[in-house]
Amino acid sequence: MNGLSFVQNRPIDIIGIGRLCVDLNANEIHRPMEETKTFTKYVGGSPANITIGSSRLGLNAGFIGKVSNDQMGRFITNYLNENEIDTSNVSVDQTGAVTGLAFTEILSPEDCSILMYRDNVADLTLSTDDVSEDYIKQAKVLLVSGTALAASPSREAVFLALEYARKHHVTVIFDVDYRPYTWNSSNETAVYYSLAAEKCDVIIGTREEFDLMEQFIKDYESDDQKTAQRWFDYNAKIVVIKHGSEGSIAYTADGLSHRGGIFKSKVLKTFGAGDSYASAFIYGLLQGWDIPRAMEFGSASASIVISKHSCSDAMPTVDEINEFMKTAEKVHL
Amino acid sequence: MNGLSFVQNRPIDIIGIGRLCVDLNANEIHRPMEETKTFTKYVGGSPANITIGSSRLGLNAGFIGKVSNDQMGRFITNYLNENEIDTSNVSVDQTGAVTGLAFTEILSPEDCSILMYRDNVADLTLSTDDVSEDYIKQAKVLLVSGTALAASPSREAVFLALEYARKHHVTVIFDVDYRPYTWNSSNETAVYYSLAAEKCDVIIGTREEFDLMEQFIKDYESDDQKTAQRWFDYNAKIVVIKHGSEGSIAYTADGLSHRGGIFKSKVLKTFGAGDSYASAFIYGLLQGWDIPRAMEFGSASASIVISKHSCSDAMPTVDEINEFMKTAEKVHL
Amino acid sequence: MNGLSFVQNRPIDIIGIGRLCVDLNANEIHRPMEETKTFTKYVGGSPANITIGSSRLGLNAGFIGKVSNDQMGRFITNYLNENEIDTSNVSVDQTGAVTGLAFTEILSPEDCSILMYRDNVADLTLSTDDVSEDYIKQAKVLLVSGTALAASPSREAVFLALEYARKHHVTVIFDVDYRPYTWNSSNETAVYYSLAAEKCDVIIGTREEFDLMEQFIKDYESDDQKTAQRWFDYNAKIVVIKHGSEGSIAYTADGLSHRGGIFKSKVLKTFGAGDSYASAFIYGLLQGWDIPRAMEFGSASASIVISKHSCSDAMPTVDEINEFMKTAEKVHL
Amino acid sequence: MNGLSFVQNRPIDIIGIGRLCVDLNANEIHRPMEETKTFTKYVGGSPANITIGSSRLGLNAGFIGKVSNDQMGRFITNYLNENEIDTSNVSVDQTGAVTGLAFTEILSPEDCSILMYRDNVADLTLSTDDVSEDYIKQAKVLLVSGTALAASPSREAVFLALEYARKHHVTVIFDVDYRPYTWNSSNETAVYYSLAAEKCDVIIGTREEFDLMEQFIKDYESDDQKTAQRWFDYNAKIVVIKHGSEGSIAYTADGLSHRGGIFKSKVLKTFGAGDSYASAFIYGLLQGWDIPRAMEFGSASASIVISKHSCSDAMPTVDEINEFMKTAEKVHL
Repeated sequence: MNGLSFVQNRPIDIIGIGRLCVDLNANEIHRPMEETKTFTKYVGGSPANITIGSSRLGLNAGFIGKVSNDQMGRFITNYLNENEIDTSNVSVDQTGAVTGLAFTEILSPEDCSILMYRDNVADLTLSTDDVSEDYIKQAKVLLVSGTALAASPSREAVFLALEYARKHHVTVIFDVDYRPYTWNSSNETAVYYSLAAEKCDVIIGTREEFDLMEQFIKDYESDDQKTAQRWFDYNAKIVVIKHGSEGSIAYTADGLSHRGGIFKSKVLKTFGAGDSYASAFIYGLLQGWDIPRAMEFGSASASIVISKHSCSDAMPTVDEINEFMKTAEKVHL
Repeated sequence: MNGLSFVQNRPIDIIGIGRLCVDLNANEIHRPMEETKTFTKYVGGSPANITIGSSRLGLNAGFIGKVSNDQMGRFITNYLNENEIDTSNVSVDQTGAVTGLAFTEILSPEDCSILMYRDNVADLTLSTDDVSEDYIKQAKVLLVSGTALAASPSREAVFLALEYARKHHVTVIFDVDYRPYTWNSSNETAVYYSLAAEKCDVIIGTREEFDLMEQFIKDYESDDQKTAQRWFDYNAKIVVIKHGSEGSIAYTADGLSHRGGIFKSKVLKTFGAGDSYASAFIYGLLQGWDIPRAMEFGSASASIVISKHSCSDAMPTVDEINEFMKTAEKVHL
Repeated sequence: MNGLSFVQNRPIDIIGIGRLCVDLNANEIHRPMEETKTFTKYVGGSPANITIGSSRLGLNAGFIGKVSNDQMGRFITNYLNENEIDTSNVSVDQTGAVTGLAFTEILSPEDCSILMYRDNVADLTLSTDDVSEDYIKQAKVLLVSGTALAASPSREAVFLALEYARKHHVTVIFDVDYRPYTWNSSNETAVYYSLAAEKCDVIIGTREEFDLMEQFIKDYESDDQKTAQRWFDYNAKIVVIKHGSEGSIAYTADGLSHRGGIFKSKVLKTFGAGDSYASAFIYGLLQGWDIPRAMEFGSASASIVISKHSCSDAMPTVDEINEFMKTAEKVHL
Repeated sequence: MNGLSFVQNRPIDIIGIGRLCVDLNANEIHRPMEETKTFTKYVGGSPANITIGSSRLGLNAGFIGKVSNDQMGRFITNYLNENEIDTSNVSVDQTGAVTGLAFTEILSPEDCSILMYRDNVADLTLSTDDVSEDYIKQAKVLLVSGTALAASPSREAVFLALEYARKHHVTVIFDVDYRPYTWNSSNETAVYYSLAAEKCDVIIGTREEFDLMEQFIKDYESDDQKTAQRWFDYNAKIVVIKHGSEGSIAYTADGLSHRGGIFKSKVLKTFGAGDSYASAFIYGLLQGWDIPRAMEFGSASASIVISKHSCSDAMPTVDEINEFMKTAEKVHL
């Protein structure tokens, strides 16, 4: 029991929409990228990672997105197929756009950074023509991540997907995933994030991301309960607010709040923590688990991924998570 | 009684937001513009015209907009001031934008066209920074016209104004006013028009404009009752659908529909009919008149304006409209 | 004898290339444009004015340019035709560009200003495809004005025209005509103006315009003789440097410099002085007059135009200039 | 004796100007890039490669360019410094531009392709402010490659560098290096390539590149001798026209043409052949060698580079080239 009711008897558990890109992870770590010689290529992008994670956990997954008409784009589609994600709604850009890139630099477990290539990217050329009502209505969950709202025509495609999802009672999960470099201004971000969040059932973001969305409120206090209530007044049932190293809190429309446990881990890098958490948390919600259990499952998944070199490729199975939880040491916040 | 309840005891009756531009009307009419020698300059733009019309009718009016930092911009602000419209929230662009222009060509009463200058226009540089919650909450009505949704940052400014208006129970009237040349695609238009219309109390548009907004609906039928119901399901109380020469029908959330009378008129040009109609119709709503009476008052105002050379400058007073209605011949549709 | 030798037996005396636009001149003068009510429409743009002036003086004239596909564009083409200018190489833009506008404000004879509309203008969409070698080789003179170098593809079209002109020994006259608002930076202007000026036989500009072109020279002194010599070292035979109210000086490759007389005039506005001067000066050069005589003829033409309301429409005939010179009072500088 | 006379007693032998970028070469070759897992990072870009090659051969080299303000940019500058290239005129972009990338795919020695990232690249933000007359006048040779002409403000920077070079008798070598994806149209390319080539002493390009530059010539024949003569009529002394597998021919202003020998090589990939050829050919010219000897030296350098994994990092020393030439088998065309 977690406050959500998913429409049953639908062939697809979860459809991700939005960013599909390529991570180029430094092979030589603990040094600045200037001194890195080689990189390994992985599929990346928050909704891609979450969808891959969901599929690894056994969910029937699909994706609505757009890839570049080149080797990078074909690599992405191939990888999604290999991970048993339905790519019938992944279309190929015809405008000469490229695949977004993220070069990662791992100076230390605490000091990781990303060099992004986000000019003229294929994922933001997704358009309303690429969004199928017939496809969306076959799903229990639509997963939206915020970066897809950063530019036209992708922004309009997401709003149309949200309309179809609401019409057909598809549960909408919004992972805020704010990336400043893809936006013109934080004002613009706040406006479109709010318009989208109004229509979502579950909203997952950091405290800073919620503050960003609420920047137009006068005499604003950064207060979790007020934030959660503001979105419950629209359509939200669960609002998850992440407080960094202090852990996350899930607020529910019944007025309660929940924390999940956290596990000790041998951290290689911090990338991918949020995406792996989200995929396992969503898995738990779909199983009907109560929120603390789903959160703990998410934490375990995150602990596994941050100990490995990639994000997408490191996403664990249910067995791996269960195995990890048997032996991992819990941290009490 | 018209289904609307305005918050009383507010100092401003109506605030317009959006386009402020200049009309250059051909002085030599009944010929192609190639042969026109001289033009007369007027303030124009749908929300400007409606606000000017409202002020002429005695309403306390204000405007949220942006004008170019040149002679054209100063002309507009001066004209609004002369018409007793509060311009404290009309700001001046600092980016080098120009005032939008509309050159009109009047070949015959039935054959009028407009040559628009809409590149780099100041009205679309209105931003969230220019929208004041304190100002909006002083008004009974916020009047939005659709062109302001055509581009950033004006689009975000309008969505923020809508949020403030809803928060403070300001009645929102949406005049669709679709101008294709300001948009990238009809898909984009449909998405943002719908997001705005969801938040409005009164929606006024042509049958074609509603069809445009509903283009993503499968197995769509162009049906007034269905259209009205779709918006009642959000926040609308009145939906006015214009059918050209067949007149307009106002649908109300109680399931009724209404027509107002139409008057015979000596037509000089068709420009300005919609704006003068809207200002007088809104005036009637604010007086608490029933809908047919407000519509008839709107029709009378339109009949006056289309017999004159300008739009804005020809907006009538209450006395002029009453005088006209005493003698004008009604047309039965 | 003026240092130029034109190829004889060519059917066209002069071809202008570049800007074709519309002037909207305030009818109510001696007041700020905010208070102007009506405007009169004329063809404008420096090369257009010079070419119209040349045709009025009896030269066989043609034009290479691009006009908008609307009433303004057709007005321009019609006006050129009425003035017996060959428009076979004036093409019609198909990209939705508009005609550039210049609203004039005449506060006093000394205080005139222009409000320009130069976004998305048709004249700058002229491309290499619109430039015909066969056409250019029929002319004695190609007249280039600098604004056409401000943006692609017009800039490339002008460079191609220059190449054809040099190949076929067409005398090239370059009127610098610097308009800052059409350029991204003065650095960019200097580079392309210099590349063009290198290929020209006659260069006409203000002292400030030559300083702009020479801004990259170290330890620069603003010195007419050095400026003239710099261009003689390329291809120039005549360099005319305008010193505002102190008059113009024409430098010739033989080391001489020349001044023409100036006439008293009843000045209405200063617009059009340079263009009318240029057209009559070029006329004189083509007649084989010596330079002082051509300059004086130019001055007389300018004196006539600045006493009238328009630029293009006020361009005088040879008889009008001669008549004026009989009675006008000469000013000695 | 090769027709060139370099100004002696200058501290710098050669300054490259233009593109500095990063190559990401597939480590797993003979497969499509979709299946490549890892990439190795090298400095790339035609003028960068040629300048690195020149420095390896013992020339005093410098560079005028702009790099991104991130790890990729610092990697490039570091690498140039390590290769003893003066980077005092390599500036750092402050606009948020990125380093251009070239992902290489090596399917077979004959079938290599490149996936380029050229949006918003730092090298094209080089501006006239970054070009120092004092620096250029210290050099014997300025090496220009055509890609730097593709966009503003880099294009203007190159034209200014050309002006300084001519003023101070710096020998200008133009490597055409046409990359269609950086240009808007081939017309635009032809115009700016021609304006640059007019001012150069040595022009190196493929037959197709010269055809591109000469596309506006009526009744055009693709003929080496005519092409060479056209540029001799401006400032060229040597024109090298590459005919792919049929080898290159160098034309000189004295009417002669020359071929250099070609060597058998174990080809890994074709990338870098032109750049290594150019650096060794220029080295030879600077030594005062006759043209066939300089060409043969160039061929030997190219044979070495195409047998290795990188372009820049594989550039040979004089000893390596001499060693190679002792044992390599010559091919007779």
